[in-house]
Amino acid sequence: MIIVLKKDATEDIVEHVVEKIKGAGLSVHISKGKERTIIGAIGDETLLSGISLEALPGVESVMPILKPYKLVSREFSKEGTVIDVGGVRIGDTELQVIAGPCSVESIDSIVNCATAVKAAGARILRGGAFKPRTSPYDFQGLGADGLKLLAEAKKKTGLPIISELMDPRDTELICEYVDIVQIGARNMQNFRLLTEAGRARKPVLLKRGLSATIKEFLMSAEYIASQGNSQIILCERGIRTFETSTRNTLDLSAVPVLKEETHLPVFIDPSHGAGRWGLVAPLAKAAVAVGADGLMIEVHTDPENALCDGAQSLKPNKFAMLMDDLRKVAVAVGRTL
Amino acid sequence: MIIVLKKDATEDIVEHVVEKIKGAGLSVHISKGKERTIIGAIGDETLLSGISLEALPGVESVMPILKPYKLVSREFSKEGTVIDVGGVRIGDTELQVIAGPCSVESIDSIVNCATAVKAAGARILRGGAFKPRTSPYDFQGLGADGLKLLAEAKKKTGLPIISELMDPRDTELICEYVDIVQIGARNMQNFRLLTEAGRARKPVLLKRGLSATIKEFLMSAEYIASQGNSQIILCERGIRTFETSTRNTLDLSAVPVLKEETHLPVFIDPSHGAGRWGLVAPLAKAAVAVGADGLMIEVHTDPENALCDGAQSLKPNKFAMLMDDLRKVAVAVGRTL
Amino acid sequence: MIIVLKKDATEDIVEHVVEKIKGAGLSVHISKGKERTIIGAIGDETLLSGISLEALPGVESVMPILKPYKLVSREFSKEGTVIDVGGVRIGDTELQVIAGPCSVESIDSIVNCATAVKAAGARILRGGAFKPRTSPYDFQGLGADGLKLLAEAKKKTGLPIISELMDPRDTELICEYVDIVQIGARNMQNFRLLTEAGRARKPVLLKRGLSATIKEFLMSAEYIASQGNSQIILCERGIRTFETSTRNTLDLSAVPVLKEETHLPVFIDPSHGAGRWGLVAPLAKAAVAVGADGLMIEVHTDPENALCDGAQSLKPNKFAMLMDDLRKVAVAVGRTL
Amino acid sequence: MIIVLKKDATEDIVEHVVEKIKGAGLSVHISKGKERTIIGAIGDETLLSGISLEALPGVESVMPILKPYKLVSREFSKEGTVIDVGGVRIGDTELQVIAGPCSVESIDSIVNCATAVKAAGARILRGGAFKPRTSPYDFQGLGADGLKLLAEAKKKTGLPIISELMDPRDTELICEYVDIVQIGARNMQNFRLLTEAGRARKPVLLKRGLSATIKEFLMSAEYIASQGNSQIILCERGIRTFETSTRNTLDLSAVPVLKEETHLPVFIDPSHGAGRWGLVAPLAKAAVAVGADGLMIEVHTDPENALCDGAQSLKPNKFAMLMDDLRKVAVAVGRTL
Repeated sequence: MIIVLKKDATEDIVEHVVEKIKGAGLSVHISKGKERTIIGAIGDETLLSGISLEALPGVESVMPILKPYKLVSREFSKEGTVIDVGGVRIGDTELQVIAGPCSVESIDSIVNCATAVKAAGARILRGGAFKPRTSPYDFQGLGADGLKLLAEAKKKTGLPIISELMDPRDTELICEYVDIVQIGARNMQNFRLLTEAGRARKPVLLKRGLSATIKEFLMSAEYIASQGNSQIILCERGIRTFETSTRNTLDLSAVPVLKEETHLPVFIDPSHGAGRWGLVAPLAKAAVAVGADGLMIEVHTDPENALCDGAQSLKPNKFAMLMDDLRKVAVAVGRTL
Repeated sequence: MIIVLKKDATEDIVEHVVEKIKGAGLSVHISKGKERTIIGAIGDETLLSGISLEALPGVESVMPILKPYKLVSREFSKEGTVIDVGGVRIGDTELQVIAGPCSVESIDSIVNCATAVKAAGARILRGGAFKPRTSPYDFQGLGADGLKLLAEAKKKTGLPIISELMDPRDTELICEYVDIVQIGARNMQNFRLLTEAGRARKPVLLKRGLSATIKEFLMSAEYIASQGNSQIILCERGIRTFETSTRNTLDLSAVPVLKEETHLPVFIDPSHGAGRWGLVAPLAKAAVAVGADGLMIEVHTDPENALCDGAQSLKPNKFAMLMDDLRKVAVAVGRTL
Repeated sequence: MIIVLKKDATEDIVEHVVEKIKGAGLSVHISKGKERTIIGAIGDETLLSGISLEALPGVESVMPILKPYKLVSREFSKEGTVIDVGGVRIGDTELQVIAGPCSVESIDSIVNCATAVKAAGARILRGGAFKPRTSPYDFQGLGADGLKLLAEAKKKTGLPIISELMDPRDTELICEYVDIVQIGARNMQNFRLLTEAGRARKPVLLKRGLSATIKEFLMSAEYIASQGNSQIILCERGIRTFETSTRNTLDLSAVPVLKEETHLPVFIDPSHGAGRWGLVAPLAKAAVAVGADGLMIEVHTDPENALCDGAQSLKPNKFAMLMDDLRKVAVAVGRTL
Repeated sequence: MIIVLKKDATEDIVEHVVEKIKGAGLSVHISKGKERTIIGAIGDETLLSGISLEALPGVESVMPILKPYKLVSREFSKEGTVIDVGGVRIGDTELQVIAGPCSVESIDSIVNCATAVKAAGARILRGGAFKPRTSPYDFQGLGADGLKLLAEAKKKTGLPIISELMDPRDTELICEYVDIVQIGARNMQNFRLLTEAGRARKPVLLKRGLSATIKEFLMSAEYIASQGNSQIILCERGIRTFETSTRNTLDLSAVPVLKEETHLPVFIDPSHGAGRWGLVAPLAKAAVAVGADGLMIEVHTDPENALCDGAQSLKPNKFAMLMDDLRKVAVAVGRTL
């Protein structure tokens, strides 16, 4: 149930409505927009049947939410969510590009990469410190040391950073360093991790699971939102299908579908979607054309010797060329980059 | 095996090489390009081991083709194939849009639709006369009458027409009317139909099957080419995955993959890919951005009362707006529309 | 709409009901069971609203069929369909095994194979004469000559034969030889072929398409039934999924689901489902345990030199051992073999 | 690399080989079988090139393992692993059935259910205390209280218990109560959780992820084994495909494939595979026939009011009937139950 308050609703009015809802045994989520305040009542809505919410002072309208996802649904907020990450606005008319290596490997490589992607126009730096790997015998990332190297690169370039959280026990450590917490595809239904991310006071980039439906993707975002954190970026990165000529099948239709269903910003990761660098450029252009709010692209200064995902990483010069191309497509669809 | 002849190779030289190959028990496919002639030797290549093809007069080089598809492979022709359909060039820098209703329903509706899509910039008219339908109790198309209505619409508007061939026994009838023969997704591995289409002297638009890999898609094109017809347009129209929020999952990655693997033009059908009209516009833009050579879009003057696929058909005014948007994206990626 | 007649309904009563339905503009399907006659009214059921079918003499009850498949639905016939093929009863308590090579290759090999599978307990001989092959350069079957060899093997062993129909133009030819017409997986939605099979007066074994839902599978069976041929055997042979360690994923759950939805017999083809002979035995046992009415198994006297599908073919001795094992499982689930 | 020692190899010999391997910079996994000791050398095998392992005293043979999974591979141990859980032998000729409710709800319901499934022949009790749920608003399990109730049911019936671990932080708590730790499908690639399970000194039942290939499934088992815990039961529970008539597609082919690839016991969970109770019995029979070592079946005394997965739970009387049927199939394939 969503309770939309009138424009001039005072704090007292908000509190009064909240008390009524809590008194009936439901919990409450308050969203203060530019123009008006919206209150979400979460729980068994039949308990509200005895209360005339519409008759309360300051209440403009009351609407049920029919979708299983409530706080992240488009019904909850017609206006798209814009997330501010150190001055970089995500979800606005300007598209944002997150770039960097799959995993942080050394201070030189991460600083060089950060400098290069910044010069090309990327506004946020990615880099894995804790790496989920299919094999226990593969490189698992530098861990806490990797976070420190990322922080160093941030200091040198001013770029905000994003890195992946794999374990609830690392939440505090990671939040100390990063500007955006990433939840990887394999952990999209790791509900304890989602709950921790929801409690963190940092924006979260949530990747779609390899076989997650769009509904399940939004339900996982709802886990984060239900803990009070609505700064969520959704990221499509390819789903698993029968086709083997690409690592995954990038589901670009998910962008307009998500734009209908949710107010959250939607990103595309063409690097994981395709699995080979030669396909990254056309898919990145398609992502901009289809309406994505941003991109996450793997860039490595020396892909051949990358410890992880070298095959799908762009060299800095290819990335810079791509950024030029993307700017033209962005303008063609009424956006900027 | 591909035998590339020297620039000045005469007819006598061509014949001599052909005789040698046939004498060894293989068959031959001759492709005369602008600059030089290429001969494809099809069959058991070990039979050629006794012949020094490279030593024959006029032969520049001899290359094995490692892919299972030969005539349609990029190795066979570095240059992209351009197909001329009544002056409309498919596979060139200019993108082409095929538009029209799912099925032909009446003379008025098809002429009105043809006039509208032509005005908006479409250069080819689509319309189903024979319709493959999941249920035997659904409308199966007007058949031969539908073809006549299409011909009427062609006469009135000058637009070349495309319609689907479902049965080998209809090949002659269909070829009498259409400018492009369509093979539908459900018939992508109807090998007898492919063989008939290969014998027809008309361009063929081949749709990818719902669960066909890209390799299988190309093998089906090879069936057509192996009969001597290399005027083939490949059309991605969505694959079947676990996701149910769209009718199919449009595999836009297929475009750059196909562009690497084959010299044939590649189209996208966003209408079937998405299954609802609200998603057609963003997916069409993405298709142009990802590098497709053209689009096939369902347009109906009265979608609510369409006998087939109304939910995914655009009204003419929406289609005209989309064409304007597509022109901008085309320019942004260095093409025209 | 299904009209169930009383036990003692005479021919006159049947005709009277039929006239009423046809008079309203619907077509009619009559099914004479052991105990009573059932009339299916196919078409726009609202046209029947003016007629009190229940009030007609001899009518016991009238039921709408809510499923999109009518004639093949379990609602249409509670009793399972039993098909008699030259004395071999398919769909009864006794399970039936169809066995033989992927393709007919020579008179010796087919007769030897037929003799061997008969000795092991198979009751029907399979063998491809027209072969659908992914590549135009692969062996396409012996065609009409293959049918003659099959007929020879039938003469020698007394086994009824089954072979695949790929082209509507071959229907008459094939029906001249075979006891069961096979429609392959790739042609499951080749609606013209289904229509021809429906007009043939032979039992049809319909294979499930690689990406066909169970509903679509039944709709294709309905195409055949709607032409008046209800002697249809459904055959699950593996669906296409992301898993690559098997050629396809054999969907054994389809058996109990189909048993709920339809009265038609259900077979399993573990050879195509698995794609390697080592998996055929366990999957065949599972098929019997899950409730299949029969199996279709590829057997070849010399798999290493088979022209087609050698990897998934059993040698006759392995097949004989498997038949012994299957008999035990059949008994364990209350059936015989 | 696997080093197989001679039958009479002493502890000194083992230590000597281990030192050599460690000295070269690899780590070591020792497996003491009934007959002989096997040493696995894990790491960069090229570092061993300077050492003649075969020449060391007590070494019988040295074999490379070509598969990416080492410790869990069939190459590592020809003999199947048998896991003893409080006297219940898993992986032996006798099949074992794990049964119980999806989630623990109350002391009465769990004790009644445990008593009933024990009477029917189940040897291990399942029950979720921590539940992974798609929606944050659904019942999440009783947590630690649920574990206590399970322990109570164990005390009353003597049945060992299994329950799911969702969070690395709960490992100690869960291991205090359960006899087998379950890792759910959604956490199959939660590598931190796998690592914790590998450090626990309890058998682990690992469920296959919804879109995990068999290779990935085994790599996740390898994560557990690489921590020194080789008491792993693999459990297939359905994969995600395009088919929607079942909740998932139970991949029974996975059983014989896994039996070839690994020495670990393989279970089937037909309840999750099918998603509706009516399909559980046929699929359970198929699982026994295909060669599974055991089953995991959801049983609830009052499915209609179950807090979770009621639709796929059997009532105790149906379960008892199923167990009788399964016994017959087990015998038919040379096993007992």
